[in-house]
Amino acid sequence: MANEFAARTSVEQVEEGAELAPKFDADGLIPAVTTDANSGEVLMVGYMNAEALRKTIETGEAHYWSRSRQVLWHKGATSGLVQKVVELMIDDDQDCVWLKVGVEGSGASCHVGYRTCFYRRIPIGKASKRLEFTETEKVFDPKVVYGDAPNPTKL
Amino acid sequence: MANEFAARTSVEQVEEGAELAPKFDADGLIPAVTTDANSGEVLMVGYMNAEALRKTIETGEAHYWSRSRQVLWHKGATSGLVQKVVELMIDDDQDCVWLKVGVEGSGASCHVGYRTCFYRRIPIGKASKRLEFTETEKVFDPKVVYGDAPNPTKL
Repeated sequence: MANEFAARTSVEQVEEGAELAPKFDADGLIPAVTTDANSGEVLMVGYMNAEALRKTIETGEAHYWSRSRQVLWHKGATSGLVQKVVELMIDDDQDCVWLKVGVEGSGASCHVGYRTCFYRRIPIGKASKRLEFTETEKVFDPKVVYGDAPNPTKL
Repeated sequence: MANEFAARTSVEQVEEGAELAPKFDADGLIPAVTTDANSGEVLMVGYMNAEALRKTIETGEAHYWSRSRQVLWHKGATSGLVQKVVELMIDDDQDCVWLKVGVEGSGASCHVGYRTCFYRRIPIGKASKRLEFTETEKVFDPKVVYGDAPNPTKL
């Protein structure tokens, strides 16, 4: 498989063509939305650099660029929660990808221990902005899975 | 409704708490994944600044920050394709939101005329990287809807 992506030469090529010509941002990254191929839930939003996108395409397993750790991140290498890519989509201007995945192991994708990273709801049109939990129990214990690895959440 | 979001004081507060304490990036933006509340499809990925997030919460209609036009963007104000927010979720470290929406009018969300912005598939594990179209017909004619407005896609 050729490792190079196509150069971006026109809006028509990018929007209406069949060439893969992704646009990476100033940090060399493209956002990646990951949904559960069965439930349709959004599990997480990560980022890929060119290498992570190539590895994902070549291996069929989700790779990201970890912004907190600044390393190529084969999702599940530590936790066992590998994401098998069922379908990989790219958007109109090719600056974002969407992965539909099956998750091995407990089926979870969130480092906090929940199934999805989106386990809290923001109330709409109400006086209160208090978040409402939509998952009430963790699927796994992050201390057991990750041990003393630093928490990726940054303030 | 108070207009201020909570300050981010600890990882535990951000991940396990009920305070809305979003993290905007260096450009003051947070990515927003928008899915169709009925089909579960990812329709688009946009960005919100604090004002767009507040307006979305207050009005129940999706507002974004247009990076190409550098303006607050009430989605559908030009096209009529308003997105009514059914549920608004925030992720573990509160640097991304997920909107489940119903779309008025033709049900489309993509400026190119397709239903979703993700109308092309990247083949996995194959020699060819040629994109495969998963939508074959446009839902609306962008020339009719947007007229001579500049195309937001940047090379």
